[in-house]
Amino acid sequence: MSKKSFKVGLLGLGTVGGGTYTVLNENAQEIERRLGFPIQVVAVAVQNIERAKKIVGDQVQVFSDGLAVVKHPEVEVVVELIGGYTVAKQLVLAAIQAGKPVVTANKALLAVHGDEIFSAAAQANVPVLFESAVAGGIPVIKALKEGLAGNQIEYVAGIINGTSNFILSEMRDKGLPFNQVLKQAQQLGYAESDPTFDIEGIDAAHKLTLLSAIAFGIHAQFNKAHIEGIQELTAQDIAFAEELGYRVKLLGITRLVEGGVELRVHPTLIPSKRLIANVEGVMNAVSIKANAVGSTLYYGPGAGALPTASSVVADLIEIARLVQAPSQCRVSTLAFQYDRLQNKPVLPMEKVVTSFYLRLLVDDKPGVLAQLTSILSKHHISIGSMIQRQLEDEGEEAQIIMLTHSCIEGDMNKALAEIETLDSVLDKVVRIRVEDLN
Amino acid sequence: MSKKSFKVGLLGLGTVGGGTYTVLNENAQEIERRLGFPIQVVAVAVQNIERAKKIVGDQVQVFSDGLAVVKHPEVEVVVELIGGYTVAKQLVLAAIQAGKPVVTANKALLAVHGDEIFSAAAQANVPVLFESAVAGGIPVIKALKEGLAGNQIEYVAGIINGTSNFILSEMRDKGLPFNQVLKQAQQLGYAESDPTFDIEGIDAAHKLTLLSAIAFGIHAQFNKAHIEGIQELTAQDIAFAEELGYRVKLLGITRLVEGGVELRVHPTLIPSKRLIANVEGVMNAVSIKANAVGSTLYYGPGAGALPTASSVVADLIEIARLVQAPSQCRVSTLAFQYDRLQNKPVLPMEKVVTSFYLRLLVDDKPGVLAQLTSILSKHHISIGSMIQRQLEDEGEEAQIIMLTHSCIEGDMNKALAEIETLDSVLDKVVRIRVEDLN
Repeated sequence: MSKKSFKVGLLGLGTVGGGTYTVLNENAQEIERRLGFPIQVVAVAVQNIERAKKIVGDQVQVFSDGLAVVKHPEVEVVVELIGGYTVAKQLVLAAIQAGKPVVTANKALLAVHGDEIFSAAAQANVPVLFESAVAGGIPVIKALKEGLAGNQIEYVAGIINGTSNFILSEMRDKGLPFNQVLKQAQQLGYAESDPTFDIEGIDAAHKLTLLSAIAFGIHAQFNKAHIEGIQELTAQDIAFAEELGYRVKLLGITRLVEGGVELRVHPTLIPSKRLIANVEGVMNAVSIKANAVGSTLYYGPGAGALPTASSVVADLIEIARLVQAPSQCRVSTLAFQYDRLQNKPVLPMEKVVTSFYLRLLVDDKPGVLAQLTSILSKHHISIGSMIQRQLEDEGEEAQIIMLTHSCIEGDMNKALAEIETLDSVLDKVVRIRVEDLN
Repeated sequence: MSKKSFKVGLLGLGTVGGGTYTVLNENAQEIERRLGFPIQVVAVAVQNIERAKKIVGDQVQVFSDGLAVVKHPEVEVVVELIGGYTVAKQLVLAAIQAGKPVVTANKALLAVHGDEIFSAAAQANVPVLFESAVAGGIPVIKALKEGLAGNQIEYVAGIINGTSNFILSEMRDKGLPFNQVLKQAQQLGYAESDPTFDIEGIDAAHKLTLLSAIAFGIHAQFNKAHIEGIQELTAQDIAFAEELGYRVKLLGITRLVEGGVELRVHPTLIPSKRLIANVEGVMNAVSIKANAVGSTLYYGPGAGALPTASSVVADLIEIARLVQAPSQCRVSTLAFQYDRLQNKPVLPMEKVVTSFYLRLLVDDKPGVLAQLTSILSKHHISIGSMIQRQLEDEGEEAQIIMLTHSCIEGDMNKALAEIETLDSVLDKVVRIRVEDLN
């Protein structure tokens, strides 16, 4: 029953595509020793045909038209690594319609057009695997879909954007402002020339949307995600957080709660002693809380040619193994049977419960603190710890830093609106959410 | 093609068996939503039948004879959770001979009798899954077998015994001696009344043997493992390590090297800034280096009823999915095709290359240091950093703590033998291996 080889069509031969080709070749022996037969790239689609031919040589057919690869009679699985929405979506849907399994690293496509793609895949009974779309080389999708399959997932919280984690690590380490570190990250190649998706939290929200779907068995709801980036963070707040025993991370959090799921990306204070708080530089980590196992964490490189290719190739090996099995032998694309996905609305942020870090610039006069705490208390917000510090050069002003206990975000909004009308409060209040992740 | 339910026979209803029964019941809806059909325990074998009936009620048949469960006509998978070698082995082999898949948490059995069990399973084409045997609830077996399947694994290094990690954490935290912390761990239920397997590294070596087999596609070689426990460690060395920027952990390390594999469990200094160095208390973590992805880490609870059951149930779900698929659709039991396992000998410790922490008690006289470094240098050992400290109450004696660069263990043995003959060296030299894990 053994077969000659499992034949792959690659769409794209850029960073991840090239990495995938390299890994398949370099580790060919080991892969065959695992599978019992080899995996072979037989066709690629690229923009620059000459460049591609130099990479793949004569053994692989090179096309400029992606559809030629999708429809290629030898191709048994289509690997989409071109990115973007339009062409990538057409090709993925064409592969599904042709009954060919799809492997893709395209988180943006799946997060935004997931419903269309996953329902087409379910109808056609075609697997769509996307381990490489979330957290690069960390096999966290497999952990959620299979390793923790005996659990009800309670929450997933992840550092899933390496660029912003690098920037935050540098800001903390060197006390430098955001803009300066961003420039440095761009020079090092850790940030794109247009860094919007990374620093504004959009890339993290794409990935979080997929994690949320497979954690809870729900549809992808990217358009409902609450997204804040790191562009407003100051080195000062990072330092105060440190003083209070916390690290600031851009966290993607999805949690099952009464009435729905939370789906939010924002800067977050995490107790320094948590393992995830110590994930530095471009590395990623995902923390998962589940009802049987408790807390587990998955750590590794979240981007890069070879780490991402590691996940692409893992998906290819899985498909190669299962392509001839009855479809019920495969793990469902979204971890749960497609007809058993649930409609869980995303909780509005006003209803989310977290603690808060607050920094207020106030007149350094008697009675101010009493005013503040009285307003907070009226809105059911109590204070856990506090720092008060006079500004060095302006004796009349002071900074007050507070950590609150858990409260409803809507209450915090009301309290801060009221606080900001006070004469003794001299600036907009800085607030950053706090997650204990215990 | 859907089926009514997948029927399980449980051998043992102790901590993990009871936990498995609980998780299957509590998460039954979620499991069915994933699989498309339910998993149902139909028979259990226990010593105390009355106690078992109180737990499982009338819906489940209770036997005192394990074979009755193995041979039960309804049972489709056998879960071995009784532990030990003799009876467990008989029952596992009987299940395999009956063509029934096996799930087991029995690391000792698989590490010591793996060859016999895995070859029987390969011959009979029956899956044997053992996620719960290593690192409790952390799905690290799945990560190695599938998530990183596109890689050549370079090394696996793990904190895979919670008891000893708890003891080391407490010794460091409170500066207490080993014996005192061990007693405390026993009172807390973190250590058995006979703690030998945990503190002497045997349990970790069982688990490491399995990790090694699936990382490299080799046979289980527990009897070749080098095993040192934590019973000789002093709070003083832990404190000096800390001063040098290191944590001491009981690490299981298996590494692919020229001419074979390393397979060793021993106390190890790890740079404090590594994530794995910050794994405290009874938690486990496994760090894996592989040629495509680089370094990844998997963290979570390494023991306990529900965490271990989480892994047992994940294995059950996998078998339920794949039981009717052709056998080539399943991942091989040891990650690689059984007929492609390789014979990699375990490297003798004399040939292993590591750095060392050394602590020497010497006469505080001129020339001693020159003697020491000259002997080390003669054996190709160079020094990275050093602390020299006079003993408070005895002015004539001093402690010298050295971190060496990488060297061959055989050279270190010779150098220390020579050093210990010096008149100015007043006691046996303390040495602990150092791993950078970068």
